[in-house]
Amino acid sequence: MRILVLGGDGFCGWPTSLHLSMQGHAVTVVDNLSRRNIDNELQVQSLTPIRSITTRLGAWKEITGRIIAYERLDVATEYDRLLNLLRARRPHVIVHFAEQRAAPYSMKSSWHKRYTVNNNLNATNNVLAAIVESGLDAHLVHLGTMGVYGYSSTGVRLPEGYLTVKMTAGDGAEVEQEILYPANPGSIYHMTKTQDQLFFAFYNKNDEARITDLHQGIVWGTQTRETRLDERLVNRFDYDGDYGTVLNRFLMQAAIDYPLTVHGSGGQTRAFIHIQDTVRCIELAIENPPARGERVKILNQLTEVHRLIDLAKLVAELTGARVEHVPNPRKEADANDLEATNAGLLGLGLKPTTLREGLLTEVTDIARRYASRCDRRRIPCVSHWTRDIAEAERPPARQGSGRRTDS
Amino acid sequence: MRILVLGGDGFCGWPTSLHLSMQGHAVTVVDNLSRRNIDNELQVQSLTPIRSITTRLGAWKEITGRIIAYERLDVATEYDRLLNLLRARRPHVIVHFAEQRAAPYSMKSSWHKRYTVNNNLNATNNVLAAIVESGLDAHLVHLGTMGVYGYSSTGVRLPEGYLTVKMTAGDGAEVEQEILYPANPGSIYHMTKTQDQLFFAFYNKNDEARITDLHQGIVWGTQTRETRLDERLVNRFDYDGDYGTVLNRFLMQAAIDYPLTVHGSGGQTRAFIHIQDTVRCIELAIENPPARGERVKILNQLTEVHRLIDLAKLVAELTGARVEHVPNPRKEADANDLEATNAGLLGLGLKPTTLREGLLTEVTDIARRYASRCDRRRIPCVSHWTRDIAEAERPPARQGSGRRTDS
Repeated sequence: MRILVLGGDGFCGWPTSLHLSMQGHAVTVVDNLSRRNIDNELQVQSLTPIRSITTRLGAWKEITGRIIAYERLDVATEYDRLLNLLRARRPHVIVHFAEQRAAPYSMKSSWHKRYTVNNNLNATNNVLAAIVESGLDAHLVHLGTMGVYGYSSTGVRLPEGYLTVKMTAGDGAEVEQEILYPANPGSIYHMTKTQDQLFFAFYNKNDEARITDLHQGIVWGTQTRETRLDERLVNRFDYDGDYGTVLNRFLMQAAIDYPLTVHGSGGQTRAFIHIQDTVRCIELAIENPPARGERVKILNQLTEVHRLIDLAKLVAELTGARVEHVPNPRKEADANDLEATNAGLLGLGLKPTTLREGLLTEVTDIARRYASRCDRRRIPCVSHWTRDIAEAERPPARQGSGRRTDS
Repeated sequence: MRILVLGGDGFCGWPTSLHLSMQGHAVTVVDNLSRRNIDNELQVQSLTPIRSITTRLGAWKEITGRIIAYERLDVATEYDRLLNLLRARRPHVIVHFAEQRAAPYSMKSSWHKRYTVNNNLNATNNVLAAIVESGLDAHLVHLGTMGVYGYSSTGVRLPEGYLTVKMTAGDGAEVEQEILYPANPGSIYHMTKTQDQLFFAFYNKNDEARITDLHQGIVWGTQTRETRLDERLVNRFDYDGDYGTVLNRFLMQAAIDYPLTVHGSGGQTRAFIHIQDTVRCIELAIENPPARGERVKILNQLTEVHRLIDLAKLVAELTGARVEHVPNPRKEADANDLEATNAGLLGLGLKPTTLREGLLTEVTDIARRYASRCDRRRIPCVSHWTRDIAEAERPPARQGSGRRTDS
């Protein structure tokens, strides 16, 4: 199939592009390199030495003989070029990763809130408008987030997108209806994904757009079978306070003898998935598209659920690191339960990579191997969700620095 | 109070600005004049001869002695100027009308979809981000739409924003929860208002922003007590296929002996409110703000519910016009029931203007008085919701033109 991967140079997009190319699909990476530019802004680098997109694609061709095309294009702002690309390539599938995906980054400042909203919402709307305008019946596969459901406990096991509820009709009778699970985002970033759901529902209803929305848990791990083939194909590994996801941050911290920083009590429960399973899920979604006229297909893309403190303890056990509790910069419950179904992707054939089997490889192959590239100053999470939290939880003066910030 | 009216030069914004000024508030109109520019684009004019904003404000000062300030500013794109304005004026209230508000316009083309999404979502997010960044505790009063609820019959009497539903917990027990009424927008425009709701819920939860969202029905009527004071203050009256609301279009059509064009069977049921009641509702919302920490206050802003065919017959009776059914350019049910509560605003003191009392005034004072300014070519609705509808319902060759479009 002809497949466009929007955001195909990023953390999920890159291994997905290689995986789909390896499956024999004709892949075009579409990317504005915004993730690399944000590295520049934050003055941080991937722990792993990622190569330029041209070097990456050249290495891929050299090793596998397969060609992946590349188009530098900003999906959120260059609509006409996007439409022309659709008309020229006539993709069967468009995989949409082209959104700013870090919750802490989206909360750093007013500018970052506005960038995230503007970029993510216009990107999604542009893709949908271009599909309609081109007249193509392309299947859109979008990476959503488990965060659309929120983490407040309702006691309900999280379904896959839709929830059957009972409501009271005007005559007092009980009416049963299936609705989109009520949105409860915890950050500006997560909010944009709940707004994406409304785009999808509308374009599906009005234009019969075929859409799969994958609500992914927190990704861990770095490499996939394809990115391991050559060091020039290595995937990015973020450990900084904005883009580093929690488990990868623990692994990095363990590798450099930094305490494992747990926000608050660590009672927050989250869903996880290995990057190898991410690319497999995208493949499964592509192979099992919704029919024309069928509603948006929503699948939960996760394999395990853990409390953060338990993850920290697991990494501490494996590595001998110590756990340190730090104030939580997020406005969220200190602890929550989370039960979610992932029956859809399991039913399609997903075989999960478990934490127990993959974790040690990450420590040795990635975190320790590239530890010398780590900039320790980038580890603390300095993005605060609200002004109140920022003021109340300003870190104390650095230990042993001999200076006081309040003097 | 110091009040900013964003979109204060528009159809609802202008009479609201005058009304609030008359109540003694210090009003600043903030507008980028986009509505006048869209008139240029569509090559159409308000039936009523609206004056330039400077002439309007000069006349207001001359007649009442009251001063309304004016700032030409694009809320969706000029964030820094917006923030500076908030810091300089320190408003107690911000009334937010600064969105593209015509469903047919939002569906005209890919460009119009993207303009509506980009403008409306960035405008709302910018206002919220600016309130947070400025540190002001300003009360945001936003004009929503009854269209967020959708018009498919669930049998449920539409509540004011929130709905109590029962869902099944993991252990099989029934759990009751209050949720935002499930969104079901019928156009890109309506969709943006459902996405606005998610902005409001998030900023309310994260930053304790104080917000009132008014889900307004279809507005009819033109003048309010203040706009009637002088012809230079006259409000706009749209009768074209994009911006003309259904009842105003019927009135105009009656005044110029044009058939009353009913889309489909006319069995669509909609909620209505007179423009005089709109400005009163905004006043009531301002006088009754939510407390800090209180959830978003949602009120239904409507006074009557009618089937479109009944409205057409009523206008036909009053004027002798005839009714003509034309194909429906919208993708919607041919008929629907609609029952909605408006207890909130009635409870705050709203005394509705009824159709029976206001309709004849509109026919004589507006539609007939300015009939000579009507451009009949602008009456048909030429914006089609989907390509299928556009192709299936292309109008036949003009009667008596002697030409065939398919020859």
